Amino acid sequence: MVGARGSVGTTATVGAAALKAGLTGTTGLVTALPPFAAAGLPSLHDLVFAGHDLVQTPLLKRADALAEQGVLPGRLLAPLADEIEATDRRILPGITSTTDEPALEGIQRVGRDLREFRAAYGLSTVVVVNVATTEAPTPPHPAHPTLAALETALAAGEDVLPPSSLYAYAALDAGCPFVDFTPSLGARLPALEELARLRGVPHAGRDGKTGETLVKSALAPMFADRALLVRSWSGTNLLGGGDGAALAEPGRVRSKLDSKGRGLAAILGYEVEAPLRIEYVADLGEWKTAWDHIGFEGFLGTRMRMQFTWEGCDSALAAPLVVDLARLVARAHVRGEHGALPALAFFFKDPVGTAEQRLDRQFALLCDWATRLGDGS
Amino acid sequence: MVGARGSVGTTATVGAAALKAGLTGTTGLVTALPPFAAAGLPSLHDLVFAGHDLVQTPLLKRADALAEQGVLPGRLLAPLADEIEATDRRILPGITSTTDEPALEGIQRVGRDLREFRAAYGLSTVVVVNVATTEAPTPPHPAHPTLAALETALAAGEDVLPPSSLYAYAALDAGCPFVDFTPSLGARLPALEELARLRGVPHAGRDGKTGETLVKSALAPMFADRALLVRSWSGTNLLGGGDGAALAEPGRVRSKLDSKGRGLAAILGYEVEAPLRIEYVADLGEWKTAWDHIGFEGFLGTRMRMQFTWEGCDSALAAPLVVDLARLVARAHVRGEHGALPALAFFFKDPVGTAEQRLDRQFALLCDWATRLGDGS
Amino acid sequence: MVGARGSVGTTATVGAAALKAGLTGTTGLVTALPPFAAAGLPSLHDLVFAGHDLVQTPLLKRADALAEQGVLPGRLLAPLADEIEATDRRILPGITSTTDEPALEGIQRVGRDLREFRAAYGLSTVVVVNVATTEAPTPPHPAHPTLAALETALAAGEDVLPPSSLYAYAALDAGCPFVDFTPSLGARLPALEELARLRGVPHAGRDGKTGETLVKSALAPMFADRALLVRSWSGTNLLGGGDGAALAEPGRVRSKLDSKGRGLAAILGYEVEAPLRIEYVADLGEWKTAWDHIGFEGFLGTRMRMQFTWEGCDSALAAPLVVDLARLVARAHVRGEHGALPALAFFFKDPVGTAEQRLDRQFALLCDWATRLGDGS
Amino acid sequence: MVGARGSVGTTATVGAAALKAGLTGTTGLVTALPPFAAAGLPSLHDLVFAGHDLVQTPLLKRADALAEQGVLPGRLLAPLADEIEATDRRILPGITSTTDEPALEGIQRVGRDLREFRAAYGLSTVVVVNVATTEAPTPPHPAHPTLAALETALAAGEDVLPPSSLYAYAALDAGCPFVDFTPSLGARLPALEELARLRGVPHAGRDGKTGETLVKSALAPMFADRALLVRSWSGTNLLGGGDGAALAEPGRVRSKLDSKGRGLAAILGYEVEAPLRIEYVADLGEWKTAWDHIGFEGFLGTRMRMQFTWEGCDSALAAPLVVDLARLVARAHVRGEHGALPALAFFFKDPVGTAEQRLDRQFALLCDWATRLGDGS
Repeated sequence: MVGARGSVGTTATVGAAALKAGLTGTTGLVTALPPFAAAGLPSLHDLVFAGHDLVQTPLLKRADALAEQGVLPGRLLAPLADEIEATDRRILPGITSTTDEPALEGIQRVGRDLREFRAAYGLSTVVVVNVATTEAPTPPHPAHPTLAALETALAAGEDVLPPSSLYAYAALDAGCPFVDFTPSLGARLPALEELARLRGVPHAGRDGKTGETLVKSALAPMFADRALLVRSWSGTNLLGGGDGAALAEPGRVRSKLDSKGRGLAAILGYEVEAPLRIEYVADLGEWKTAWDHIGFEGFLGTRMRMQFTWEGCDSALAAPLVVDLARLVARAHVRGEHGALPALAFFFKDPVGTAEQRLDRQFALLCDWATRLGDGS
Repeated sequence: MVGARGSVGTTATVGAAALKAGLTGTTGLVTALPPFAAAGLPSLHDLVFAGHDLVQTPLLKRADALAEQGVLPGRLLAPLADEIEATDRRILPGITSTTDEPALEGIQRVGRDLREFRAAYGLSTVVVVNVATTEAPTPPHPAHPTLAALETALAAGEDVLPPSSLYAYAALDAGCPFVDFTPSLGARLPALEELARLRGVPHAGRDGKTGETLVKSALAPMFADRALLVRSWSGTNLLGGGDGAALAEPGRVRSKLDSKGRGLAAILGYEVEAPLRIEYVADLGEWKTAWDHIGFEGFLGTRMRMQFTWEGCDSALAAPLVVDLARLVARAHVRGEHGALPALAFFFKDPVGTAEQRLDRQFALLCDWATRLGDGS
Repeated sequence: MVGARGSVGTTATVGAAALKAGLTGTTGLVTALPPFAAAGLPSLHDLVFAGHDLVQTPLLKRADALAEQGVLPGRLLAPLADEIEATDRRILPGITSTTDEPALEGIQRVGRDLREFRAAYGLSTVVVVNVATTEAPTPPHPAHPTLAALETALAAGEDVLPPSSLYAYAALDAGCPFVDFTPSLGARLPALEELARLRGVPHAGRDGKTGETLVKSALAPMFADRALLVRSWSGTNLLGGGDGAALAEPGRVRSKLDSKGRGLAAILGYEVEAPLRIEYVADLGEWKTAWDHIGFEGFLGTRMRMQFTWEGCDSALAAPLVVDLARLVARAHVRGEHGALPALAFFFKDPVGTAEQRLDRQFALLCDWATRLGDGS
Repeated sequence: MVGARGSVGTTATVGAAALKAGLTGTTGLVTALPPFAAAGLPSLHDLVFAGHDLVQTPLLKRADALAEQGVLPGRLLAPLADEIEATDRRILPGITSTTDEPALEGIQRVGRDLREFRAAYGLSTVVVVNVATTEAPTPPHPAHPTLAALETALAAGEDVLPPSSLYAYAALDAGCPFVDFTPSLGARLPALEELARLRGVPHAGRDGKTGETLVKSALAPMFADRALLVRSWSGTNLLGGGDGAALAEPGRVRSKLDSKGRGLAAILGYEVEAPLRIEYVADLGEWKTAWDHIGFEGFLGTRMRMQFTWEGCDSALAAPLVVDLARLVARAHVRGEHGALPALAFFFKDPVGTAEQRLDRQFALLCDWATRLGDGS
């Protein structure tokens, strides 16, 4: 995990440890549902967690802080302390854009880390999942369209990739699948798609769908299938915690809003007035509250309204999906899939390789793919 | 239409007239969507509206009252007055349980009306849609299980069927498909299912899904597919208008609540604490407002919440579906389908012939069926 | 406290102990606000907590359970354990209607308990606050109007009073002020009002105003003062915990609904369509969620709407008010006030001795009274 | 009225005409409540409506458009057409900053208009109420602090005042009271306050309190008086119509947000995290919807939440207040009051001359003042 000591990374580590120890159930874990039973996914006991991070705070201390906020049950931490600390020792220094380390050296260092980790634990595959803080959008650059141009620029010491893409490069180049759970650039570049295909490695993303957008992708098809005309869909997102603070920066929030806004027109088949706001409210801590107001029109032009509020804990929603993605992508890699994995659209706000945004169709695609993953295994 | 001068019946008449006259668009009309283009459905211009009702208020006056409440655009009424009045003349006296007319005579009278209407307009089929006020639940009776027992009881002048079932009997016996848009008993009796098969006539129902239950059937699969555990789903429905007043009677509201409550456990796969209330609020007029509060659990037992409010105009939501159902069932009849039509589950809270309650799967079933309806046509 | 081991009683005990120990602040404590600084109220350090209860579960165990649910911070319990257990030892067996003990003996027993407690701790006054489970409404009885008739009936062993009123009798007769924080009958009988005046003791109530009704009494004056016409005010209350389960009984919920419904017409000056529901949702635990939908009319008859949801923890809202009431009523007693105390209307849904239901006017009355309580002290 | 052909101005004209004609009731009109009966206010029949506007659309056409949107009952327009057209003829060309007319000439022209109107109708006083579109904030200027400096700058042809202040200058200088119902600068300048006192004319403002802020000023005192600690109060305002479009401009929205945000800390006594957004949603037309999310803390630090949505029609809420303000300020003028009128704080988001933001205290101040206005009359 890139950003392994963040809220999502910490919750994923604690949760996977609790699952292995039989201290919690599989609520929230999609791959524990019946359609995935025969997909040949690695068992939870076969997973080893590790990561990179810039933050030094011990993982157990981070977990304690999350327990204080009600994200985790505090009673889990004592029995799992050894396991959590073992993961903590596998978290290595991350890449940052505000350092002297040239981009190419960062890539090479992380690549070495990944290879050594794979070898040390005798792993059949290492899936790199980015759960670090959202980056501001990266402007296009002439080095992005082809791998050759990108390699030239990196060799020349040019600063052409954000950290998320340096990790993606390192992962793909080391033969490790890459998953972007954030709206950052990550592997979403022609040059890196080329690298993924060259190395025969799959990648997936981007931006985990865990709250307002999830609900939107479940509800919007209802309006479409009932021929109801959506006139406006206004969304307000109040976010606390580190995520909210990062998104208070105009650049980063732009990445997020772009990603969130994409689905509606794709589902409805027409453009809708859909103002979307993200607001940082420190008071909410690790929780987020979204309010959506939908104005729609029925037969004979009659105007109606729907509103919803979603009060969710982002880490509790995202962490099990990180485990799901690791299992699914590992299996895909073993089965020889490479390049973008559109069948994982179910998990993302801005899926690669497909325009499908309807949650139910995404789930059907995922289940079909899982069936194929299991064939002959 | 049974109850043709009610809000839904009036809106369906006005709306269909407006569509034919090109004065309104097809918003809200499911059969106007692309998947139904090749299903061979009768065109709107081929439909003739008629009905039965106990109420004598002229249809145009009812339409005026709906326009006052914002259900219909008042400007439509002048240009459509002739068409509305023509339908009004085709609305005949209905059947009621509080009269001297024996049940069998009522059945025969309505049967005659249907045959004469079919002959007078040279119609290939007449679809009877029940949009009358919800009845209280009908207690089981020994005459219900077989057609023979039912015929004997009716011949003996026994009062064994509510009006909705008398209409269903009359319709099926006259070779007319029957659709129950209400939670009343209608054709949902083994004896009447037997009659439907005997006469080779299809029937569908029951209880049109237009508000809270519609949203529920779109949202609940999201929780199921994401492995989130729903702990409670509390629903409050504020209804005004005639519907609300009728449902203020404990017997009738029982019918409605039974029908509304059915879907959740079917979708989630487990029983959920799901208190459901219907409250009559005269102030709301033709509008209804539902508030649902959902308590759910994610990874590691974290508790979260979702709430929604739905502010809909029942007639504007239901009326186009009446037109849809008439078109679809007429086509099914022509194609020789008979008995319960499970492919229409998409339209109903308590569908006959299927346990499928997930809106998206219901839509997929409907589209597949529509494709088959169009085959070779 | 009557019902001292209930959620409110337990939270009041823990909270007062935490305040004395300097482990928490005065949030939620009205008497800590500036207007009460000079009212001569007993300091928190002068209060001794005790009570009656039918339940035997140790108070510390109850507190632990509340901490699990997030009502109390668990970290408080270890440092306060001695203090909590000391209070626990002062909780004596309560009165119940399902026992062999005749009413009069119950009254005498509790009276003795109160006198002994007062003497043992050298207290200037003992305030009895009823925080036990809501009773079903008590039907009128010929023994209720006068003290003489009541005494005759009790002497004859008749069952004419519910437990709340037996406690009230015992308290008043022992010279102890009585406060009813529930909608039970308590001291609200002419015979007991007579007893209060005879013994020179004040009493107050009833039914603590802590959630939906509190908000209603703050919001309804806005509509009145702006000349906006409220057309409907529909309220739904989802309650978990012991309170919700008790209120799932139709009799008890009647008491609560009567009490909750009283204020609106009093504030607005006209009767309003105001359906009100209480629904038991076990999933909510110690929390309650209310949803209110208000339909109102403005200039030229324009219809508008307001909705609110209140997600509160009843014990956290009620417990500090129990401390407030004990302080205020003790002071009133010392100052020689007796009979009903209308100045405490601010705290109650159904205040005794006044028809004032507007929260702001109630607060003004309370502050004025507090000023008078402090005069010359 | 400045902006007399806007939605508020049009609704005020139609509404006042309907009241005079007995075609509507006094709902929404504060001065029709009992506390104002003896204040000696001018009767509705004594009011003559007129105004300035840049817009040329006939008032009746504007009224028709509002009726279409459900702001006004369309049936009123035919019987009131003559009266509406008579007002329309009294609406003269307004002042704009994008013209060749020097500021001083604009002031003089409007001043002449006001004097001529007063003389033509033999009016005892003319109250100028600004209901025009919100202006962007005006930067401070050395000409603002004193009347002498302002006169010098105007005489020199300097552009130092926005249109709202030119109107205020013209009004005050002509001996006409000025009321600012918008957050524009208006009379809120030391130089104009000086002019008001010099001419012995009252003024009031600013920014009519008709929706979210109104509710906030009714609810926030509840938290304060119950000693509940508000941790965050997040507000989202969806506005359609002309108002929303104007506020989509960052400058203008700044004026509005400043004005809206002022009250909370004043009521609570401490600063609160209170993000506030205004979002333009054309689909909402003349309606606006606000959603507020309040995080608060009770006893022992327990966190709770309240949310509300307000779905209002701004014109229906604001128009009667314009009539109220005209009546109250006219009376104040006749009684010799001059300068800022703090007793009118009840009507405004950002009241002049007082820091009182609590709705109930504002209403009490208003009623007391109304009583004094009536003394000896």
